[in-house]
Amino acid sequence: MKKFVFALASAGAAGAALAQSSVTLFGVVDAAVSYTRGSGDGSAHKTQLTNSGNMFSRIGFRGTEDLGGGLSAGFWLEAGLQNDNGTGFPSNTNNQTSGNGTPGVLSFNRRSTVSLSGPFGEFRLGRDYVPAFWNTAIFDPFGTGGGIGANQIYFSGLGGLPAPTGTRASNSVGYFLPGNLGGFYGQAMYAMGENDSNSVLPGTLRSNRRDGSHVGFRFGYLQGGFNIALATGKTRYASGDLRVTNLGASYTFGPSLMSLKLTGELYTESKGSTDGKGALIGFQLPVGPGEIKGSYARYRLEPAGAPMKPTTSKFAIGYVHNLSKRTALYATFARIGNRNGAAQALAGAITMPNRASTGTEFGMRHIF
Amino acid sequence: MKKFVFALASAGAAGAALAQSSVTLFGVVDAAVSYTRGSGDGSAHKTQLTNSGNMFSRIGFRGTEDLGGGLSAGFWLEAGLQNDNGTGFPSNTNNQTSGNGTPGVLSFNRRSTVSLSGPFGEFRLGRDYVPAFWNTAIFDPFGTGGGIGANQIYFSGLGGLPAPTGTRASNSVGYFLPGNLGGFYGQAMYAMGENDSNSVLPGTLRSNRRDGSHVGFRFGYLQGGFNIALATGKTRYASGDLRVTNLGASYTFGPSLMSLKLTGELYTESKGSTDGKGALIGFQLPVGPGEIKGSYARYRLEPAGAPMKPTTSKFAIGYVHNLSKRTALYATFARIGNRNGAAQALAGAITMPNRASTGTEFGMRHIF
Amino acid sequence: MKKFVFALASAGAAGAALAQSSVTLFGVVDAAVSYTRGSGDGSAHKTQLTNSGNMFSRIGFRGTEDLGGGLSAGFWLEAGLQNDNGTGFPSNTNNQTSGNGTPGVLSFNRRSTVSLSGPFGEFRLGRDYVPAFWNTAIFDPFGTGGGIGANQIYFSGLGGLPAPTGTRASNSVGYFLPGNLGGFYGQAMYAMGENDSNSVLPGTLRSNRRDGSHVGFRFGYLQGGFNIALATGKTRYASGDLRVTNLGASYTFGPSLMSLKLTGELYTESKGSTDGKGALIGFQLPVGPGEIKGSYARYRLEPAGAPMKPTTSKFAIGYVHNLSKRTALYATFARIGNRNGAAQALAGAITMPNRASTGTEFGMRHIF
Repeated sequence: MKKFVFALASAGAAGAALAQSSVTLFGVVDAAVSYTRGSGDGSAHKTQLTNSGNMFSRIGFRGTEDLGGGLSAGFWLEAGLQNDNGTGFPSNTNNQTSGNGTPGVLSFNRRSTVSLSGPFGEFRLGRDYVPAFWNTAIFDPFGTGGGIGANQIYFSGLGGLPAPTGTRASNSVGYFLPGNLGGFYGQAMYAMGENDSNSVLPGTLRSNRRDGSHVGFRFGYLQGGFNIALATGKTRYASGDLRVTNLGASYTFGPSLMSLKLTGELYTESKGSTDGKGALIGFQLPVGPGEIKGSYARYRLEPAGAPMKPTTSKFAIGYVHNLSKRTALYATFARIGNRNGAAQALAGAITMPNRASTGTEFGMRHIF
Repeated sequence: MKKFVFALASAGAAGAALAQSSVTLFGVVDAAVSYTRGSGDGSAHKTQLTNSGNMFSRIGFRGTEDLGGGLSAGFWLEAGLQNDNGTGFPSNTNNQTSGNGTPGVLSFNRRSTVSLSGPFGEFRLGRDYVPAFWNTAIFDPFGTGGGIGANQIYFSGLGGLPAPTGTRASNSVGYFLPGNLGGFYGQAMYAMGENDSNSVLPGTLRSNRRDGSHVGFRFGYLQGGFNIALATGKTRYASGDLRVTNLGASYTFGPSLMSLKLTGELYTESKGSTDGKGALIGFQLPVGPGEIKGSYARYRLEPAGAPMKPTTSKFAIGYVHNLSKRTALYATFARIGNRNGAAQALAGAITMPNRASTGTEFGMRHIF
Repeated sequence: MKKFVFALASAGAAGAALAQSSVTLFGVVDAAVSYTRGSGDGSAHKTQLTNSGNMFSRIGFRGTEDLGGGLSAGFWLEAGLQNDNGTGFPSNTNNQTSGNGTPGVLSFNRRSTVSLSGPFGEFRLGRDYVPAFWNTAIFDPFGTGGGIGANQIYFSGLGGLPAPTGTRASNSVGYFLPGNLGGFYGQAMYAMGENDSNSVLPGTLRSNRRDGSHVGFRFGYLQGGFNIALATGKTRYASGDLRVTNLGASYTFGPSLMSLKLTGELYTESKGSTDGKGALIGFQLPVGPGEIKGSYARYRLEPAGAPMKPTTSKFAIGYVHNLSKRTALYATFARIGNRNGAAQALAGAITMPNRASTGTEFGMRHIF
């Protein structure tokens, strides 16, 4: 996504200090034909054109300005796209369900920030990923695409515990460590729910003035082919705080081992009296102009006092054929298995409790 | 719309293979003052600022990437604009009325595709015109603008049989023949309604799993000043399939006949037990820096068993004064006549059954 | 905002006449941490990330085309942004409350116009500022930002009389005098409500066919450091016309007086039987790379026959530290006082009648 930068000509007196400034129009358009099915009486299958099977479709505008003295300013406005039908995605205004927008509405839901960077690191204001989501995004070989490959089974809002701050938070102040710490990296975020001090949880007398306030951290180490990161986050809700902690790691072997990359993630979350525990292992293997990748994930929901712990597993394997650095064709096969009453299905399908869901998709991804 | 291309500089290692890549920001902003009126007791007139009197207002982003070997990838994201008030148009997510978006919402409703082109032609995925709409768009001298000139009387959603797939379809896979077939051209589209296999028509037990699925074809021949094309399409609905077939042709005379262009279209459609039949003839005549154009259209609705066949005719004449290739001023006069109980009126007006509606508009169109 | 212009390359035959054409992507991303509070039993305070504390956040596309002979065409599409959460702002389609869009929806609500300019001045069609809003925007040292500094106390929709045409109007035809009148400048606007001729006010038999129709004028004189302008506007509503008249002036002293700028505005408005009267004085003082600014405003609501005239005053002081021409850090303190039953509060806070509201914000503004 970083490849294309609009050439800029200053219409005023172009000073040298602005020479490195740029505004970039960027995006991804990714579409796939997908067939998913469930099993059991009442299950359903669907054939559809989906988006984002390889990378999440988006359009964005971003830029940086060199302020001199090692300082730079930047902005980033990025909107998710449902390019199969031309619609977008709504954002959330207050990190609470009451702030959810109208489905399909275009917004800069993926990222909307202004930032100041320097030797001290980066301060970033606006809407952005919560720190703990990065591990789920980076250590899944299928990333966070909307397709059938990505690990939806403990993804918030899909299989995992639902929360507006599962992926991103609005009204956030973020801080990122500088890039020169010998491989160590890290970030912190505080995001506000923005209820006023009089607010109460609807139907109760309990204050919800802090609902939607999120605190998150992520620290990692990247050296050679090795990358490891620990992240955690907590969002306050009067109805029960959401807590997420995860640990991700990957190792890329050298050319003698065909540059094989192995990845893994351990994941734990809780909301009120319900816990969730997940794990993922995966690989990526370059083959000629393409890449084979696979993953296996498990997720177990643990409602307090419930007799069963619904458990879901997912297996996905895919091939990506790169026509260029920007354009690829891809195919993915995935299977979800359910136990203990779980009934997760691949997008578009309905499956019965303890029954499997399988799917295949063929698509094309273009980065601009 | 193809005139302006952003100069691109690769921020990475720019290989020769990417030399012909481009991203283009393009659009049309077209506004007109329009006065329309009806006749009879209860009729209404309106003066308004409208958009799209000459060309449909829009803003879009598109690009192509040369993949080498005759292959190229492309994307196209195009949003309709109501620039008189700053709003957009919603898209439709499933080719069914249940998928209609909120009026005024901005979306890439006009086109949202990713495509792969080569010697074999072009495969295109996403939201796009249905094949049969092209004839109505191309063989009307007033195009498909939102103004009073365009042939609304058998345009789906205006005078014609209403259907979400009257103009465009979402979730489509399209194929276009290559451009080197000696003047022959053609395309096919399959679009999915994306209901799951359990879906039933609300309030019934009838399956509607295929509702919104569309199949369409268009074949034509273009040589010298002659252009002819036949198109057809069918959208499945449990409440009654929509079928459209049309034939369009145009001929442009040489300079000795002042480069006069004549156009015509025959149109037939049906939905459930209602048929519709339309026809249009028109001309375009260059005069100095401008163009005079005119059209006459008829449309007859034929509800099965109904005693009368509501019939509407429309006459439009206009002058377009080009200030440049991109910018024009224009004036249009139009009159709709009704018989057998029909009561179609020009946009903004209300007319009584069997009474006429007339209108005038003056506008400016700018392409960027 | 005028600083960056995309370099354009004509994909067709680029004539010299198009050499000065350009399309510009521009915008502002401005975010601030704000704390506001009220006083009295039942008052509320709030800490939040806000947008637009220094300049209103936006993204836009605009361009001009040189048509030769002193003529040029232009378009301008500008969308307001709530970059703290990634959403936009709706527009209004008919200058009436019935035309308000869904909150948070992205639209070109700030400006959406096509225009033709020449020695005669400029004609502009679409959605734009009403003339009378310019004085409130220009003669307030804090502009019209969404932050706590700007003079909200008589801003329509905040403290002032609410009306869809308080700031902008859709469906407008605008005219601007040319720029060579020896310092005199001026503009006129007529905007249409676009009700049809049969329309009546809901629940009554009174015609509202002219509801939302707006007429406005502004005339001014700018010479040396002196600027003065008188503006007026009237919007017709069957429920009571809205009338606004204001006079603004500013004077910038020379370098010997540190380039101090003083500003002031007198403001009067009425809707139905309620009058409103406001005034503002302010200053801007450059200090090194920054600027100190302050303002004091008053607004008195005068409902006909009411025993009290609710009166609000506002004081704001701020410092803007410019990191470059495009990027600044800023801090603002503001206090609102209330009398005679008024209960206006700074954004986010709730205050009790006759009690004060205070607030502070720290932010960053980046222009691209």
